[in-house]
Amino acid sequence: MQGATPLAKAESTDEMSDLSPKAFEPTLLNLISGWVGPDPTPVIACGMVDAKQDWNETPYRAVPTTPLGLPVLVETKSAAIAVHIIPGLKQSNPADVMRGEETRIAGFLALNPGWDGVICMPGTHSKWVLVSAGEVVSFQTFMTGELFASLSQHTVLRHSIATTGWDETTFLEAVDDAMSKPERLAARLFSLRADDLLNGQPKPTARSRLSGQLIGAELAASRPYWLGQNIAIVGADKTAEIYASALARQGAPATIADATRMTLAGLTTAHRLMKGTT
Amino acid sequence: MQGATPLAKAESTDEMSDLSPKAFEPTLLNLISGWVGPDPTPVIACGMVDAKQDWNETPYRAVPTTPLGLPVLVETKSAAIAVHIIPGLKQSNPADVMRGEETRIAGFLALNPGWDGVICMPGTHSKWVLVSAGEVVSFQTFMTGELFASLSQHTVLRHSIATTGWDETTFLEAVDDAMSKPERLAARLFSLRADDLLNGQPKPTARSRLSGQLIGAELAASRPYWLGQNIAIVGADKTAEIYASALARQGAPATIADATRMTLAGLTTAHRLMKGTT
Repeated sequence: MQGATPLAKAESTDEMSDLSPKAFEPTLLNLISGWVGPDPTPVIACGMVDAKQDWNETPYRAVPTTPLGLPVLVETKSAAIAVHIIPGLKQSNPADVMRGEETRIAGFLALNPGWDGVICMPGTHSKWVLVSAGEVVSFQTFMTGELFASLSQHTVLRHSIATTGWDETTFLEAVDDAMSKPERLAARLFSLRADDLLNGQPKPTARSRLSGQLIGAELAASRPYWLGQNIAIVGADKTAEIYASALARQGAPATIADATRMTLAGLTTAHRLMKGTT
Repeated sequence: MQGATPLAKAESTDEMSDLSPKAFEPTLLNLISGWVGPDPTPVIACGMVDAKQDWNETPYRAVPTTPLGLPVLVETKSAAIAVHIIPGLKQSNPADVMRGEETRIAGFLALNPGWDGVICMPGTHSKWVLVSAGEVVSFQTFMTGELFASLSQHTVLRHSIATTGWDETTFLEAVDDAMSKPERLAARLFSLRADDLLNGQPKPTARSRLSGQLIGAELAASRPYWLGQNIAIVGADKTAEIYASALARQGAPATIADATRMTLAGLTTAHRLMKGTT
Protein backbone atom coordinates (compact mmCIF):
# COMPACT_ATOMS: atom_id res chain seq x y z
CA MET A 1 0.00 0.00 0.00
CA GLN A 2 1.18 3.53 -0.74
CA GLY A 3 0.75 6.59 1.48
CA ALA A 4 -2.44 8.61 1.17
CA THR A 5 -2.40 11.74 -1.00
CA PRO A 6 -4.65 14.50 0.34
CA LEU A 7 -6.96 16.10 -2.23
CA ALA A 8 -7.73 19.06 0.02
CA LYS A 9 -6.75 20.24 3.46
CA ALA A 10 -8.30 22.44 6.14
CA GLU A 11 -6.98 23.28 9.59
CA SER A 12 -8.47 24.95 12.61
CA THR A 13 -6.41 27.00 15.00
CA ASP A 14 -8.79 26.19 17.86
CA GLU A 15 -7.16 24.23 20.68
CA MET A 16 -9.01 21.20 22.04
CA SER A 17 -8.80 22.59 25.55
CA ASP A 18 -10.46 25.85 24.43
CA LEU A 19 -13.51 24.09 22.95
CA SER A 20 -16.43 22.83 25.00
CA PRO A 21 -17.70 19.34 24.07
CA LYS A 22 -20.72 20.97 22.42
CA ALA A 23 -18.46 23.09 20.22
CA PHE A 24 -16.73 20.15 18.49
CA GLU A 25 -19.43 19.46 15.91
CA PRO A 26 -20.07 23.09 14.82
CA THR A 27 -16.30 23.67 14.63
CA LEU A 28 -15.89 20.65 12.37
CA LEU A 29 -18.90 21.56 10.20
CA ASN A 30 -17.60 25.07 9.78
CA LEU A 31 -14.22 23.74 8.70
CA ILE A 32 -15.48 21.24 6.10
CA SER A 33 -18.64 23.01 4.87
CA GLY A 34 -17.27 23.18 1.33
CA TRP A 35 -16.90 19.37 1.17
CA VAL A 36 -20.33 18.36 2.44
CA GLY A 37 -22.84 17.20 -0.21
CA PRO A 38 -26.51 16.17 -0.20
CA ASP A 39 -25.79 12.67 1.18
CA PRO A 40 -24.21 12.23 4.63
CA THR A 41 -20.45 12.72 4.22
CA PRO A 42 -18.35 10.07 5.97
CA VAL A 43 -15.84 11.52 8.46
CA ILE A 44 -13.18 9.44 10.20
CA ALA A 45 -11.54 11.02 13.24
CA CYS A 46 -8.82 9.99 15.66
CA GLY A 47 -6.97 11.37 18.64
CA MET A 48 -8.04 13.59 21.47
CA VAL A 49 -11.33 14.38 19.71
CA ASP A 50 -12.43 11.43 21.78
CA ALA A 51 -10.81 12.04 25.16
CA LYS A 52 -12.81 11.97 28.35
CA GLN A 53 -13.33 15.73 28.48
CA ASP A 54 -14.57 15.94 24.89
CA TRP A 55 -16.99 15.12 22.13
CA ASN A 56 -17.92 11.55 22.77
CA GLU A 57 -16.30 8.63 24.46
CA THR A 58 -15.50 5.54 22.42
CA PRO A 59 -14.31 2.59 24.54
CA TYR A 60 -10.59 1.84 24.53
CA ARG A 61 -9.44 -1.51 23.06
CA ALA A 62 -7.11 -3.54 25.30
CA VAL A 63 -3.61 -4.53 24.19
CA PRO A 64 -2.28 -6.87 22.91
CA THR A 65 -4.29 -6.14 19.77
CA THR A 66 -4.02 -4.76 16.25
CA PRO A 67 -3.62 -0.98 16.29
CA LEU A 68 -6.89 -0.32 14.44
CA GLY A 69 -10.35 -1.32 15.58
CA LEU A 70 -13.48 -0.62 13.54
CA PRO A 71 -14.21 3.14 13.73
CA VAL A 72 -17.30 3.77 15.86
CA LEU A 73 -20.21 5.87 14.54
CA VAL A 74 -20.99 8.67 17.00
CA GLU A 75 -24.18 10.69 17.33
CA THR A 76 -24.21 14.05 15.58
CA LYS A 77 -26.86 16.76 15.50
CA SER A 78 -26.32 17.39 11.83
CA ALA A 79 -27.47 14.75 9.30
CA ALA A 80 -24.93 16.07 6.78
CA ILE A 81 -22.03 14.13 8.33
CA ALA A 82 -21.53 10.56 9.55
CA VAL A 83 -18.67 10.82 12.06
CA HIS A 84 -16.69 7.67 12.90
CA ILE A 85 -14.05 7.68 15.62
CA ILE A 86 -11.07 5.34 15.75
CA PRO A 87 -10.92 3.76 19.23
CA GLY A 88 -7.87 4.37 21.40
CA LEU A 89 -5.87 1.61 23.11
CA LYS A 90 -5.54 0.80 26.79
CA GLN A 91 -3.18 -1.31 28.88
CA SER A 92 -4.02 -2.65 32.36
CA ASN A 93 -0.63 -3.05 33.94
CA PRO A 94 1.02 -0.62 34.10
CA ALA A 95 -2.12 1.44 33.44
CA ASP A 96 -1.75 3.40 30.22
CA VAL A 97 -3.83 4.82 27.37
CA MET A 98 -3.36 6.22 23.88
CA ARG A 99 -5.69 8.07 21.50
CA GLY A 100 -4.46 9.00 18.06
CA GLU A 101 -1.12 7.20 18.21
CA GLU A 102 -2.82 3.90 17.28
CA THR A 103 -3.69 5.49 13.91
CA ARG A 104 -0.07 6.50 13.29
CA ILE A 105 1.09 2.99 14.21
CA ALA A 106 -1.43 1.53 11.75
CA GLY A 107 -0.19 3.93 9.08
CA PHE A 108 3.42 3.01 9.76
CA LEU A 109 2.64 -0.71 9.54
CA ALA A 110 0.60 -0.19 6.36
CA LEU A 111 3.63 1.49 4.78
CA ASN A 112 6.07 -1.04 6.28
CA PRO A 113 4.30 -4.40 6.12
CA GLY A 114 5.77 -7.08 8.38
CA TRP A 115 7.79 -4.59 10.45
CA ASP A 116 8.58 -5.67 14.03
CA GLY A 117 10.24 -3.51 16.66
CA VAL A 118 9.69 -0.49 18.86
CA ILE A 119 8.00 2.71 17.72
CA CYS A 120 8.86 5.90 19.59
CA MET A 121 6.42 8.79 19.20
CA PRO A 122 7.98 11.83 20.89
CA GLY A 123 5.90 14.83 21.88
CA THR A 124 3.81 16.31 24.66
CA HIS A 125 3.12 12.77 25.84
CA SER A 126 5.78 10.55 24.28
CA LYS A 127 4.81 6.94 23.63
CA TRP A 128 7.07 3.89 23.33
CA VAL A 129 5.26 1.02 21.65
CA LEU A 130 6.35 -2.60 21.22
CA VAL A 131 4.99 -3.96 17.92
CA SER A 132 5.13 -7.60 16.92
CA ALA A 133 3.36 -9.56 14.18
CA GLY A 134 1.13 -6.59 13.36
CA GLU A 135 -0.05 -6.13 16.96
CA VAL A 136 0.64 -3.59 19.68
CA VAL A 137 2.06 -5.77 22.47
CA SER A 138 2.63 -3.12 25.16
CA PHE A 139 3.33 0.61 25.50
CA GLN A 140 4.50 3.27 27.91
CA THR A 141 3.72 6.99 28.03
CA PHE A 142 6.18 9.67 29.21
CA MET A 143 5.08 13.23 29.93
CA THR A 144 8.40 14.61 28.66
CA GLY A 145 7.07 17.36 26.37
CA GLU A 146 4.53 18.59 28.88
CA LEU A 147 7.12 18.44 31.68
CA PHE A 148 9.49 20.56 29.60
CA ALA A 149 6.78 23.13 28.87
CA SER A 150 5.62 23.21 32.46
CA LEU A 151 9.12 23.62 33.92
CA SER A 152 10.22 26.23 31.40
CA GLN A 153 7.02 28.31 31.61
CA HIS A 154 5.57 27.88 35.10
CA THR A 155 8.57 27.60 37.45
CA VAL A 156 11.51 29.82 38.45
CA LEU A 157 13.42 28.26 35.53
CA ARG A 158 11.38 30.47 33.18
CA HIS A 159 13.80 33.32 33.97
CA SER A 160 16.76 31.23 32.78
CA ILE A 161 15.53 29.23 29.78
CA ALA A 162 15.26 30.51 26.21
CA THR A 163 12.27 29.64 24.03
CA THR A 164 14.52 29.01 21.02
CA GLY A 165 18.15 28.15 20.30
CA TRP A 166 19.98 24.84 20.50
CA ASP A 167 23.36 23.57 21.64
CA GLU A 168 23.73 19.95 20.52
CA THR A 169 26.88 19.23 22.55
CA THR A 170 25.25 20.45 25.77
CA PHE A 171 22.12 18.44 24.95
CA LEU A 172 24.05 15.19 24.43
CA GLU A 173 26.13 15.70 27.58
CA ALA A 174 22.93 16.19 29.58
CA VAL A 175 21.43 13.02 28.04
CA ASP A 176 24.56 11.05 28.99
CA ASP A 177 24.53 12.45 32.51
CA ALA A 178 20.84 11.67 33.02
CA MET A 179 21.27 8.12 31.75
CA SER A 180 24.42 7.31 33.70
CA LYS A 181 23.12 8.70 37.03
CA PRO A 182 19.31 8.65 36.81
CA GLU A 183 19.03 8.89 40.59
CA ARG A 184 20.41 12.45 40.35
CA LEU A 185 17.54 13.79 38.21
CA ALA A 186 15.87 15.82 40.97
CA ALA A 187 19.21 17.45 41.85
CA ARG A 188 19.83 18.78 38.34
CA LEU A 189 16.88 21.09 37.77
CA PHE A 190 17.64 24.02 40.08
CA SER A 191 21.26 24.19 38.87
CA LEU A 192 19.85 25.54 35.58
CA ARG A 193 18.75 28.60 37.57
CA ALA A 194 21.87 28.81 39.73
CA ASP A 195 24.21 28.59 36.71
CA ASP A 196 22.38 31.58 35.25
CA LEU A 197 22.58 33.65 38.46
CA LEU A 198 26.21 32.83 39.26
CA ASN A 199 27.81 32.16 35.89
CA GLY A 200 25.54 33.88 33.38
CA GLN A 201 24.86 30.60 31.57
CA PRO A 202 23.33 31.44 28.15
CA LYS A 203 19.58 30.76 28.08
CA PRO A 204 19.72 28.58 24.92
CA THR A 205 22.32 26.43 26.71
CA ALA A 206 19.93 26.02 29.65
CA ARG A 207 17.17 25.05 27.21
CA SER A 208 19.37 22.35 25.66
CA ARG A 209 20.44 21.10 29.11
CA LEU A 210 16.86 20.81 30.39
CA SER A 211 15.83 19.03 27.21
CA GLY A 212 18.75 16.61 27.58
CA GLN A 213 17.96 15.98 31.23
CA LEU A 214 14.31 15.15 30.53
CA ILE A 215 14.87 13.13 27.34
CA GLY A 216 17.75 11.35 29.12
CA ALA A 217 15.37 10.48 31.96
CA GLU A 218 12.88 9.17 29.40
CA LEU A 219 15.52 7.05 27.69
CA ALA A 220 16.74 5.70 31.06
CA ALA A 221 13.19 4.65 31.95
CA SER A 222 12.33 3.32 28.48
CA ARG A 223 15.55 1.31 28.11
CA PRO A 224 13.68 -2.02 28.49
CA TYR A 225 11.74 -0.98 25.38
CA TRP A 226 14.51 0.07 23.03
CA LEU A 227 17.62 -1.86 24.09
CA GLY A 228 18.63 -4.18 21.25
CA GLN A 229 15.46 -3.43 19.27
CA ASN A 230 14.62 -2.26 15.80
CA ILE A 231 13.61 1.39 16.45
CA ALA A 232 11.38 3.74 14.41
CA ILE A 233 10.69 7.31 15.48
CA VAL A 234 7.33 8.60 14.26
CA GLY A 235 7.44 12.33 14.85
CA ALA A 236 7.82 15.78 13.37
CA ASP A 237 10.96 17.61 12.27
CA LYS A 238 13.25 18.81 15.05
CA THR A 239 11.76 16.72 17.86
CA ALA A 240 12.22 13.48 15.91
CA GLU A 241 15.81 14.47 15.07
CA ILE A 242 16.62 15.24 18.71
CA TYR A 243 15.40 11.81 19.83
CA ALA A 244 17.31 10.12 17.00
CA SER A 245 20.44 11.97 18.04
CA ALA A 246 20.04 10.97 21.71
CA LEU A 247 19.42 7.33 20.76
CA ALA A 248 22.35 7.24 18.34
CA ARG A 249 24.57 8.40 21.22
CA GLN A 250 23.48 5.25 23.09
CA GLY A 251 24.43 3.09 20.13
CA ALA A 252 20.78 2.66 19.17
CA PRO A 253 20.17 3.86 15.59
CA ALA A 254 16.58 4.73 14.66
CA THR A 255 14.75 5.47 11.42
CA ILE A 256 12.44 8.49 11.29
CA ALA A 257 8.96 8.55 9.76
CA ASP A 258 6.83 11.69 9.45
CA ALA A 259 3.93 11.74 11.91
CA THR A 260 1.41 13.52 9.67
CA ARG A 261 2.10 11.13 6.80
CA MET A 262 1.63 8.13 9.13
CA THR A 263 -1.65 9.57 10.43
CA LEU A 264 -3.00 10.01 6.89
CA ALA A 265 -1.96 6.47 5.97
CA GLY A 266 -3.63 5.21 9.18
CA LEU A 267 -6.88 7.08 8.44
CA THR A 268 -6.88 5.60 4.92
CA THR A 269 -6.41 2.13 6.39
CA ALA A 270 -9.27 2.79 8.80
CA HIS A 271 -11.52 3.86 5.93
CA ARG A 272 -10.74 0.63 4.04
CA LEU A 273 -11.40 -1.36 7.20
CA MET A 274 -14.81 0.34 7.52
CA LYS A 275 -15.65 -0.45 3.92
CA GLY A 276 -14.43 -4.04 4.36
CA THR A 277 -11.81 -3.69 1.64
CA THR A 278 -8.70 -4.65 3.60
CA MET B 1 20.64 31.66 73.75
CA GLN B 2 16.86 31.41 73.86
CA GLY B 3 14.47 31.83 70.94
CA ALA B 4 13.25 35.33 70.12
CA THR B 5 9.85 36.39 71.46
CA PRO B 6 8.03 38.71 69.07
CA LEU B 7 6.54 41.83 70.70
CA ALA B 8 4.35 42.58 67.70
CA LYS B 9 3.65 41.03 64.34
CA ALA B 10 2.43 42.27 60.94
CA GLU B 11 1.97 40.33 57.72
CA SER B 12 1.32 41.33 54.15
CA THR B 13 -0.68 39.17 51.79
CA ASP B 14 1.21 40.59 48.80
CA GLU B 15 3.24 37.98 46.92
CA MET B 16 6.81 38.87 45.97
CA SER B 17 6.12 38.07 42.34
CA ASP B 18 3.19 40.54 42.31
CA LEU B 19 5.31 43.47 43.56
CA SER B 20 7.59 45.51 41.34
CA PRO B 21 11.03 46.30 42.81
CA LYS B 22 9.85 49.88 43.38
CA ALA B 23 6.90 48.66 45.45
CA PHE B 24 8.98 46.88 48.11
CA GLU B 25 9.75 49.95 50.21
CA PRO B 26 6.24 51.49 50.26
CA THR B 27 4.75 48.06 51.03
CA LEU B 28 7.11 47.66 54.00
CA LEU B 29 6.54 51.22 55.26
CA ASN B 30 2.80 50.74 55.05
CA LEU B 31 3.07 47.53 57.06
CA ILE B 32 5.24 48.90 59.89
CA SER B 33 4.07 52.54 60.01
CA GLY B 34 2.92 52.12 63.63
CA TRP B 35 6.42 51.11 64.77
CA VAL B 36 8.44 53.87 63.13
CA GLY B 37 9.62 56.67 65.45
CA PRO B 38 11.48 59.99 64.99
CA ASP B 39 14.90 58.32 64.64
CA PRO B 40 15.60 55.91 61.75
CA THR B 41 14.17 52.52 62.75
CA PRO B 42 16.55 49.61 62.10
CA VAL B 43 15.05 46.88 59.90
CA ILE B 44 16.73 43.52 59.23
CA ALA B 45 15.42 41.54 56.30
CA CYS B 46 16.23 38.15 54.77
CA GLY B 47 15.06 35.94 51.95
CA MET B 48 13.74 36.70 48.52
CA VAL B 49 13.42 40.40 49.37
CA ASP B 50 16.88 40.40 47.89
CA ALA B 51 16.57 38.14 44.85
CA LYS B 52 17.74 39.24 41.42
CA GLN B 53 14.31 40.43 40.29
CA ASP B 54 13.70 42.47 43.45
CA TRP B 55 14.51 45.33 45.80
CA ASN B 56 18.24 45.40 45.84
CA GLU B 57 21.00 42.94 45.25
CA THR B 58 23.34 42.08 48.10
CA PRO B 59 26.28 39.88 47.02
CA TYR B 60 26.11 36.19 47.93
CA ARG B 61 28.73 34.84 50.36
CA ALA B 62 30.57 31.70 49.17
CA VAL B 63 30.48 28.45 51.15
CA PRO B 64 32.14 27.06 53.18
CA THR B 65 31.31 29.87 55.59
CA THR B 66 29.26 30.71 58.67
CA PRO B 67 25.56 31.03 57.80
CA LEU B 68 25.35 34.71 58.75
CA GLY B 69 27.34 37.54 57.25
CA LEU B 70 27.01 41.13 58.40
CA PRO B 71 23.64 42.49 57.20
CA VAL B 72 24.16 45.03 54.41
CA LEU B 73 22.60 48.50 54.62
CA VAL B 74 20.61 49.18 51.46
CA GLU B 75 19.50 52.50 50.03
CA THR B 76 15.96 53.59 50.89
CA LYS B 77 13.98 56.64 49.80
CA SER B 78 12.55 57.13 53.26
CA ALA B 79 14.86 58.32 56.05
CA ALA B 80 12.53 56.75 58.63
CA ILE B 81 13.99 53.27 58.20
CA ALA B 82 17.50 51.82 57.98
CA VAL B 83 17.07 48.55 56.07
CA HIS B 84 19.76 45.89 56.42
CA ILE B 85 19.64 42.72 54.33
CA ILE B 86 21.21 39.42 55.35
CA PRO B 87 23.34 38.15 52.45
CA GLY B 88 22.46 34.84 50.83
CA LEU B 89 24.93 32.01 50.25
CA LYS B 90 26.34 30.64 47.00
CA GLN B 91 28.22 27.52 45.99
CA SER B 92 30.38 27.23 42.85
CA ASN B 93 30.27 23.53 42.12
CA PRO B 94 27.61 22.37 41.70
CA ALA B 95 26.24 25.90 41.20
CA ASP B 96 23.64 26.69 43.86
CA VAL B 97 22.24 29.62 45.82
CA MET B 98 20.11 30.28 48.89
CA ARG B 99 18.46 33.41 50.26
CA GLY B 100 16.60 33.24 53.55
CA GLU B 101 17.56 29.69 54.49
CA GLU B 102 20.93 30.93 55.83
CA THR B 103 18.97 32.87 58.49
CA ARG B 104 17.04 29.76 59.55
CA ILE B 105 20.28 27.79 59.74
CA ALA B 106 21.79 30.51 61.93
CA GLY B 107 18.68 30.41 64.15
CA PHE B 108 18.85 26.63 64.42
CA LEU B 109 22.54 26.76 65.37
CA ALA B 110 21.91 29.56 67.88
CA LEU B 111 19.30 27.38 69.57
CA ASN B 112 21.41 24.21 69.22
CA PRO B 113 25.01 25.32 69.84
CA GLY B 114 27.66 22.89 68.62
CA TRP B 115 25.20 20.93 66.45
CA ASP B 116 26.74 19.08 63.47
CA GLY B 117 24.82 17.28 60.77
CA VAL B 118 22.49 17.83 57.84
CA ILE B 119 19.60 20.31 57.82
CA CYS B 120 16.75 19.62 55.43
CA MET B 121 14.47 22.57 54.63
CA PRO B 122 11.56 21.22 52.59
CA GLY B 123 9.38 23.51 50.50
CA THR B 124 9.00 25.11 47.09
CA HIS B 125 12.76 24.82 46.69
CA SER B 126 13.94 22.25 49.24
CA LYS B 127 17.48 22.68 50.54
CA TRP B 128 19.79 20.04 52.02
CA VAL B 129 22.62 21.65 53.96
CA LEU B 130 25.73 20.05 55.46
CA VAL B 131 26.70 21.89 58.64
CA SER B 132 29.94 21.32 60.51
CA ALA B 133 31.70 23.32 63.24
CA GLY B 134 29.23 26.19 62.87
CA GLU B 135 29.77 26.51 59.10
CA VAL B 136 27.72 25.67 56.03
CA VAL B 137 29.99 23.25 54.20
CA SER B 138 27.85 22.55 51.11
CA PHE B 139 24.23 22.50 50.03
CA GLN B 140 21.88 21.27 47.31
CA THR B 141 18.54 22.66 46.14
CA PHE B 142 15.66 20.52 44.85
CA MET B 143 12.64 22.04 43.08
CA THR B 144 10.32 19.45 44.60
CA GLY B 145 7.56 21.75 45.85
CA GLU B 146 7.47 23.79 42.67
CA LEU B 147 7.57 20.62 40.56
CA PHE B 148 4.58 19.24 42.47
CA ALA B 149 2.62 22.49 42.02
CA SER B 150 3.52 22.74 38.36
CA LEU B 151 2.59 19.12 37.56
CA SER B 152 -0.64 19.16 39.54
CA GLN B 153 -1.82 22.54 38.21
CA HIS B 154 -0.40 22.98 34.71
CA THR B 155 -0.38 19.50 33.13
CA VAL B 156 -2.97 16.87 32.21
CA LEU B 157 -2.50 15.48 35.75
CA ARG B 158 -4.59 18.39 37.05
CA HIS B 159 -7.71 16.42 36.08
CA SER B 160 -6.66 13.49 38.29
CA ILE B 161 -5.05 15.04 41.38
CA ALA B 162 -6.92 16.39 44.40
CA THR B 163 -5.83 19.62 46.09
CA THR B 164 -6.33 18.09 49.56
CA GLY B 165 -6.51 14.64 51.15
CA TRP B 166 -3.72 12.27 52.14
CA ASP B 167 -3.06 8.54 52.02
CA GLU B 168 0.07 7.80 54.06
CA THR B 169 0.42 4.18 52.90
CA THR B 170 0.27 5.16 49.22
CA PHE B 171 2.74 7.98 49.88
CA LEU B 172 5.29 5.69 51.55
CA GLU B 173 4.94 3.02 48.84
CA ALA B 174 5.61 5.67 46.18
CA VAL B 175 8.68 6.89 48.13
CA ASP B 176 10.00 3.32 48.31
CA ASP B 177 9.37 2.74 44.64
CA ALA B 178 11.07 6.00 43.61
CA MET B 179 14.10 5.25 45.77
CA SER B 180 14.52 1.63 44.72
CA LYS B 181 14.14 2.31 40.98
CA PRO B 182 15.04 5.98 40.46
CA GLU B 183 15.63 5.37 36.74
CA ARG B 184 11.87 4.76 36.39
CA LEU B 185 10.83 8.26 37.53
CA ALA B 186 9.83 9.55 34.09
CA ALA B 187 7.68 6.45 33.51
CA ARG B 188 5.57 6.96 36.64
CA LEU B 189 3.95 10.33 36.03
CA PHE B 190 1.44 9.56 33.29
CA SER B 191 0.21 6.46 35.10
CA LEU B 192 -1.40 8.84 37.62
CA ARG B 193 -3.67 9.96 34.77
CA ALA B 194 -4.19 6.49 33.28
CA ASP B 195 -5.10 4.96 36.67
CA ASP B 196 -7.80 7.61 36.96
CA LEU B 197 -9.20 7.02 33.46
CA LEU B 198 -9.09 3.22 33.60
CA ASN B 199 -9.49 2.39 37.28
CA GLY B 200 -11.11 5.47 38.81
CA GLN B 201 -8.18 5.97 41.19
CA PRO B 202 -9.28 8.41 43.93
CA LYS B 203 -7.79 11.87 43.42
CA PRO B 204 -6.36 12.13 46.98
CA THR B 205 -4.56 8.82 46.31
CA ALA B 206 -3.04 10.31 43.14
CA ARG B 207 -1.96 13.35 45.17
CA SER B 208 -0.19 11.14 47.72
CA ARG B 209 1.43 9.05 44.96
CA LEU B 210 2.78 12.10 43.11
CA SER B 211 4.09 13.53 46.37
CA GLY B 212 5.78 10.20 47.17
CA GLN B 213 7.30 9.96 43.70
CA LEU B 214 8.79 13.45 43.85
CA ILE B 215 9.97 13.32 47.48
CA GLY B 216 11.34 9.83 46.79
CA ALA B 217 13.27 11.23 43.83
CA GLU B 218 14.60 14.00 46.09
CA LEU B 219 15.68 11.51 48.75
CA ALA B 220 17.33 9.29 46.12
CA ALA B 221 19.33 12.26 44.83
CA SER B 222 20.12 13.67 48.29
CA ARG B 223 21.23 10.33 49.76
CA PRO B 224 24.91 11.41 49.85
CA TYR B 225 23.75 14.21 52.16
CA TRP B 226 21.64 12.33 54.68
CA LEU B 227 22.97 8.77 54.77
CA GLY B 228 24.39 8.05 58.22
CA GLN B 229 24.03 11.69 59.28
CA ASN B 230 22.41 13.55 62.14
CA ILE B 231 19.31 15.03 60.45
CA ALA B 232 17.20 18.08 61.38
CA ILE B 233 14.17 19.14 59.35
CA VAL B 234 13.49 22.87 59.54
CA GLY B 235 10.02 23.29 58.11
CA ALA B 236 6.37 23.93 58.74
CA ASP B 237 3.69 21.53 59.95
CA LYS B 238 2.54 18.92 57.46
CA THR B 239 5.43 19.26 55.01
CA ALA B 240 8.01 18.70 57.73
CA GLU B 241 6.08 15.66 59.00
CA ILE B 242 5.86 14.14 55.50
CA TYR B 243 9.63 14.41 55.05
CA ALA B 244 10.25 12.98 58.51
CA SER B 245 7.96 10.07 57.69
CA ALA B 246 9.72 9.37 54.38
CA LEU B 247 13.15 9.54 56.04
CA ALA B 248 12.07 7.31 58.94
CA ARG B 249 11.02 4.72 56.36
CA GLN B 250 14.65 4.71 55.13
CA GLY B 251 15.92 4.14 58.67
CA ALA B 252 16.97 7.78 58.96
CA PRO B 253 15.26 9.44 61.95
CA ALA B 254 15.08 13.25 61.90
CA THR B 255 14.18 15.91 64.45
CA ILE B 256 11.81 18.69 63.39
CA ALA B 257 12.28 22.39 64.14
CA ASP B 258 9.72 25.08 63.27
CA ALA B 259 10.84 27.24 60.35
CA THR B 260 9.30 30.52 61.57
CA ARG B 261 10.86 30.11 65.01
CA MET B 262 14.26 29.43 63.44
CA THR B 263 13.93 32.52 61.20
CA LEU B 264 13.14 34.75 64.22
CA ALA B 265 16.10 33.31 66.13
CA GLY B 266 18.29 33.90 63.07
CA LEU B 267 17.15 37.51 62.69
CA THR B 268 17.87 38.08 66.40
CA THR B 269 21.35 36.64 65.93
CA ALA B 270 21.88 38.90 62.92
CA HIS B 271 20.82 41.94 64.97
CA ARG B 272 23.35 41.05 67.69
CA LEU B 273 26.02 40.54 65.03
CA MET B 274 25.25 44.03 63.67
CA LYS B 275 25.52 45.56 67.12
CA GLY B 276 28.73 43.63 67.80
CA THR B 277 27.29 41.86 70.83
CA THR B 278 27.81 38.23 69.77
